[in-house]
Amino acid sequence: MTTRAGIVVTGTEVLTGRVIDRNGPWLAEALRVYGVDIAHVSIVGDRPDDLRDALRFAAGSGVDLIITSGGLGPTADDLTAEVVAGEQGRAMRLDPELEQQIAAIVERLSANFGWPSDPEATAAATRKQAMVPDGASVLAPVGTAPGLVVPVGPGRSGPPVVVLPGPPRELQGMWPAVLETPAVQTALAGRAELRQSTIRLWGTRESELAETLREQDGHLDGLEITTCLREGEVEIVTRYGIAAQPTYDRLHAVLAQTYAATAFSLDGATIDEVVAGALLARGLTVATAESCTAGLLAGRLTDLAGSSAYVLGGLVVYSNQAKHDLAGVSMELIERVGAVSPEVAEALAEGARARLGADIGVGITGIAGPGGGTAEKPVGLVYLGVSGLGQTIVRKLNLPGSRADVRRRTVVIALHQVRELLVPLEAT
Amino acid sequence: MTTRAGIVVTGTEVLTGRVIDRNGPWLAEALRVYGVDIAHVSIVGDRPDDLRDALRFAAGSGVDLIITSGGLGPTADDLTAEVVAGEQGRAMRLDPELEQQIAAIVERLSANFGWPSDPEATAAATRKQAMVPDGASVLAPVGTAPGLVVPVGPGRSGPPVVVLPGPPRELQGMWPAVLETPAVQTALAGRAELRQSTIRLWGTRESELAETLREQDGHLDGLEITTCLREGEVEIVTRYGIAAQPTYDRLHAVLAQTYAATAFSLDGATIDEVVAGALLARGLTVATAESCTAGLLAGRLTDLAGSSAYVLGGLVVYSNQAKHDLAGVSMELIERVGAVSPEVAEALAEGARARLGADIGVGITGIAGPGGGTAEKPVGLVYLGVSGLGQTIVRKLNLPGSRADVRRRTVVIALHQVRELLVPLEAT
Repeated sequence: MTTRAGIVVTGTEVLTGRVIDRNGPWLAEALRVYGVDIAHVSIVGDRPDDLRDALRFAAGSGVDLIITSGGLGPTADDLTAEVVAGEQGRAMRLDPELEQQIAAIVERLSANFGWPSDPEATAAATRKQAMVPDGASVLAPVGTAPGLVVPVGPGRSGPPVVVLPGPPRELQGMWPAVLETPAVQTALAGRAELRQSTIRLWGTRESELAETLREQDGHLDGLEITTCLREGEVEIVTRYGIAAQPTYDRLHAVLAQTYAATAFSLDGATIDEVVAGALLARGLTVATAESCTAGLLAGRLTDLAGSSAYVLGGLVVYSNQAKHDLAGVSMELIERVGAVSPEVAEALAEGARARLGADIGVGITGIAGPGGGTAEKPVGLVYLGVSGLGQTIVRKLNLPGSRADVRRRTVVIALHQVRELLVPLEAT
Repeated sequence: MTTRAGIVVTGTEVLTGRVIDRNGPWLAEALRVYGVDIAHVSIVGDRPDDLRDALRFAAGSGVDLIITSGGLGPTADDLTAEVVAGEQGRAMRLDPELEQQIAAIVERLSANFGWPSDPEATAAATRKQAMVPDGASVLAPVGTAPGLVVPVGPGRSGPPVVVLPGPPRELQGMWPAVLETPAVQTALAGRAELRQSTIRLWGTRESELAETLREQDGHLDGLEITTCLREGEVEIVTRYGIAAQPTYDRLHAVLAQTYAATAFSLDGATIDEVVAGALLARGLTVATAESCTAGLLAGRLTDLAGSSAYVLGGLVVYSNQAKHDLAGVSMELIERVGAVSPEVAEALAEGARARLGADIGVGITGIAGPGGGTAEKPVGLVYLGVSGLGQTIVRKLNLPGSRADVRRRTVVIALHQVRELLVPLEAT
């Protein structure tokens, strides 16, 4: 039987999407190596009844561990510790040692930032954050809020609740201490690792893949396969226990052969990592000249640590004047064929390469919208040029969706175009 | 009594964080204007039992409407329609008209992309997607999957379930049709708008704000106030019915006066919108020269439609050679004080302004990590220069967190620095 955990994320700001939850995914990955599966993530606002409902749903679904994030701050809407204590049948008590610890942290923070001190507000906030459920393990603050591991009170049964702060840096910093607590050690005892392998395809339809998987029916025991389409990539993620490794290896070989022309990643590497690896392996450098994406491709190429080994820099050429001044595109060309044209995409790619002295240049020009489209050149029309290694490729894209969609998709397609130049795939 | 909705997001890829849910937040906002509050968002994997649990949790929490997203694709792990039918007590039937509709869409898509046709795989996928619960309203596909509105079957009670596809573009495109269905019309009938107002502060601690709100105790009836700290901004979001408008207006005035020196947004505008508005109002232009953020600031400045009116372009100067060649920073200066220095930040800001012919230049140089830090210049050290309107400001930042954190925070602080140059706030 699998050990399963339920996650409860609190915060109206997460519920309404003003803040994106990064804790659920992080916890899913952190628990997977201990053989623990996430059963569900529930997001509720800062209302005690809703938090209580979500805790009961999690406990009632039979999970072995519940983890909450958020609602530990100093304001009145931060009520997680109190609600969890109520559900676990435990009273709240002031932890004087914790109170001193938090006071010292707040003092140091204020001094660091040169903020004026407000002793009254600070004392009230500190006291609130130092109230803990009786019988809970208290985890030292990474920010200002402590974490808690709250087993059920006497005479009750149910999973322990791990109460963690909302800011990802604080939650992650507290995780090693969580794993040390007796209640969590008991919940994790004797579990075997759950493996996860990922294959990514570019240019295969999900329905084709579904057909391939149907053909493998009866040879997939012990594998939990999920497929999803993201930004044009088909991602196949398989989870399995150690005993099913041979079954997975067989599937892996089938997919690698069937999709030899589209499987750009057989080892879980992202497109970013594949491009970075190929550039590093061959000692090549890249530079960009971006109009409608305006720096997003350069920003993405430098997401990975160590990218200074292959990214020299780039040009953000939003205005036509900048296309001319920075990338050396002739004004006559722009006037003749328009800024959004295959000719300008090519000139941008070559301009980026020449100006930065890079091996590979990428040029992007298009209409991200929502305005600026015409019947001839509609919103979503993007020209993408890639130049280097003795080749120049220009692609015309017609992308659906919002301004943000068009910009984001263009960046992904550009990464794949660079990858195809560096590591062409061919059917075997 | 408020009308409330529960949202159930399916997909192991969302549960494990490989894909970020954008539907919950979008639906929360779309429903708010109809006076409907989101009670909870539950994320479950592609397992029928978990989906069933989440649907029962939502129905049991007393919501008036349940909306699901995802799990309508052609692969075997897409099982939402079937599970919802089971919970609502309805049988599945093939909808022949829908089957033809989907087949035509798939045919057109394949032709568009020039993909080879695979009639057998396509027919199986199409048939699966054309199976609908008996008695459901079928919503025409925006992508290939139809939407469904499934009222409870005869002899049962409970809220209707709206079944929508996972891709945000498809879900959003289908929304007007959702609102037209009888079951949803009944659920929304006679509800009054719920208002939401937002104030944003830069440079105020959350604990100070908590104290201000405590002082207002007794004058806040009918307001649901949530505060959160995001990227250094304190955000105060208040939700209220129309009757509580005067109460909110009073609070708004108190906050505006108390935080005159830090309230950069009193009308819900984001920092991006405040900067854009100030540049547009004064007819000013901006340009960037970025090292460690490598285009992310330029990318963010152009997130908003119409940004070509004030963004001319920028320089991504990742290598020292690029700092010299593109932004005109002297190699002698870089050798003398180092690339990460106040002098180089200033030279980058001025170089960006000069090379692009902009009114305001922003220069960024720092150590995003995880490598490259020294005792003297640790990871997280960033110099930010802003030049224009007769001033040059250089700030030294020491930012905590990961490489991504450092880069993202730098961009936010840069936006605020530009805002302070354009719209200085002063205590009244």
